[in-house]
Amino acid sequence: MYVIVAYDVGVERVARVLKICRRYLTWVQNSLLEGELTPAQLRRLQQELERTIDRENDSVQFYILPQASVAKRVTLGLVKNQPSQVI
Amino acid sequence: MYVIVAYDVGVERVARVLKICRRYLTWVQNSLLEGELTPAQLRRLQQELERTIDRENDSVQFYILPQASVAKRVTLGLVKNQPSQVI
Repeated sequence: MYVIVAYDVGVERVARVLKICRRYLTWVQNSLLEGELTPAQLRRLQQELERTIDRENDSVQFYILPQASVAKRVTLGLVKNQPSQVI
Repeated sequence: MYVIVAYDVGVERVARVLKICRRYLTWVQNSLLEGELTPAQLRRLQQELERTIDRENDSVQFYILPQASVAKRVTLGLVKNQPSQVI
């Protein structure tokens, strides 16, 4: 499955959340990562994030697609990373 | 089509970019909006953003899906908005 993750977390947790996400996904731009995951990897990522975020204040969105090709990806401005070339 | 937009722009352009995006899409969390658009609306949104962002420094990602249902959306932590209930 292909997973897009966007996080909105308190500044004191940004570094930890980014570090966790980077172990599973490719960085696209500030607060946004994506990549191919197995269901087990997705579960582990979600569990690690759940232990790290403040549920009263932080928010992490997962968009889970059957494969990357169901979404057309368009970048305006600077391409800060090109995960499709990394994967 | 269903469009997810995530922006990473200089702080001096955040308010203008958010204002443009809000006219077309529903706010989900910081820097992230989504919603149903016609192809013409998507083109207008992209044109407005292209006139507003600094192409050397800012980045806006569009994920364009044939319909919302191709992506499963999971939120960890706080649900800051629920666009699926608004649309």
